[in-house]
Amino acid sequence: MVVKVYGPDYASPKRVILCLIEKEIDYETVDVDLFKGEHLSPQYLKLQPFGVLPVIEDGDYILYESRAIIRYYAEKYRSQGSELLGKTIEERGLIEQWLDVEAHNFQPPLYDLVVQLLINPKTGVASDPKRIQEDEEKLAKTLDVYEERLSVSKYLASDTFSLADLSHIPFGNYLVTTLKKEYLIRDRKNVSRWWDDISSRPSWKKVLELHPPVL
Amino acid sequence: MVVKVYGPDYASPKRVILCLIEKEIDYETVDVDLFKGEHLSPQYLKLQPFGVLPVIEDGDYILYESRAIIRYYAEKYRSQGSELLGKTIEERGLIEQWLDVEAHNFQPPLYDLVVQLLINPKTGVASDPKRIQEDEEKLAKTLDVYEERLSVSKYLASDTFSLADLSHIPFGNYLVTTLKKEYLIRDRKNVSRWWDDISSRPSWKKVLELHPPVL
Repeated sequence: MVVKVYGPDYASPKRVILCLIEKEIDYETVDVDLFKGEHLSPQYLKLQPFGVLPVIEDGDYILYESRAIIRYYAEKYRSQGSELLGKTIEERGLIEQWLDVEAHNFQPPLYDLVVQLLINPKTGVASDPKRIQEDEEKLAKTLDVYEERLSVSKYLASDTFSLADLSHIPFGNYLVTTLKKEYLIRDRKNVSRWWDDISSRPSWKKVLELHPPVL
Repeated sequence: MVVKVYGPDYASPKRVILCLIEKEIDYETVDVDLFKGEHLSPQYLKLQPFGVLPVIEDGDYILYESRAIIRYYAEKYRSQGSELLGKTIEERGLIEQWLDVEAHNFQPPLYDLVVQLLINPKTGVASDPKRIQEDEEKLAKTLDVYEERLSVSKYLASDTFSLADLSHIPFGNYLVTTLKKEYLIRDRKNVSRWWDDISSRPSWKKVLELHPPVL
């Protein structure tokens, strides 16, 4: 059974695809055009009742929330491809901690920057300079904590690449490309070293090649 | 080694304590008074660099992010107390999905209601009626999805109580107490039945008795 991933053009589904490639799991994609409102169609809402990306179909098994999906495949194919959940329960605990930090302190301000600077200009909505400044300040504060952490650890949870690092890549990529906010990474020596390391993985290069971002 | 939980007065640390009681794990608590700014003291920031609750100390092992902590203990003491992570990898996948739904669609508007209606009046900050209305609308939309789900499933992830349900209890409790927004639950038959079930567990009664909420 080949895993079907919905919405490969966008960053959250890319989190899933990146994990599937690291785990050497075959997948196919189903396009969902947010600008045409396809995420709000009755068929899509049947799979993902909140109308957000991504969702996967794996035979009869339907799962949404990108970080739940990557945990599922990292666990199910534990011995195949890259090990992404750590060697001990304690290491997994730290991976979960940094996955949740990513979800609560890294992605929200970055997602809002994407909305303000990349989506609003396309949809004719005015952007809010005060919010943009607040987002950048929040992100800077988060990355200050990362800088400290990455001064004693090669990756976020341990000295081994894990789901916690992987989860940062698709949205982090906006900083160094279309958002033009690379300074947030480059101003921090250890964050910079970490970003170069995780974003140069063959899996991410493959994601960019197969599914070029639309934003 | 007894687990030390910081900040038992507040809802996010109660998520951890509730899990520890379900898993029959001994713990002690360390008070952190947010209204005195103790979460921003240098000693606290050494344990939790973002200055938020909770954090746990378990010997040398320090972990933060409440949902990472409950996953850790549910996994570490798998065969002790209530089983909270499901019987299969597929069931765990759904538990992770609903845990992330709680973190992204349930807690954020509810947390903002707590700030607007319970914290701001204590700190002399003006509340924003427009935000309060938006929060209630967001929460209502989330609970509409829950209503549908709970019409076919006893609990969120399956017919068995899990971390996904547990995670809703401490903030959900504000709705039926000090926030006076119980209608959000009672207007929905299945959400109402589910809430009565999960909030009447002996573990939650014990949490309320041992650590009465300060808000």
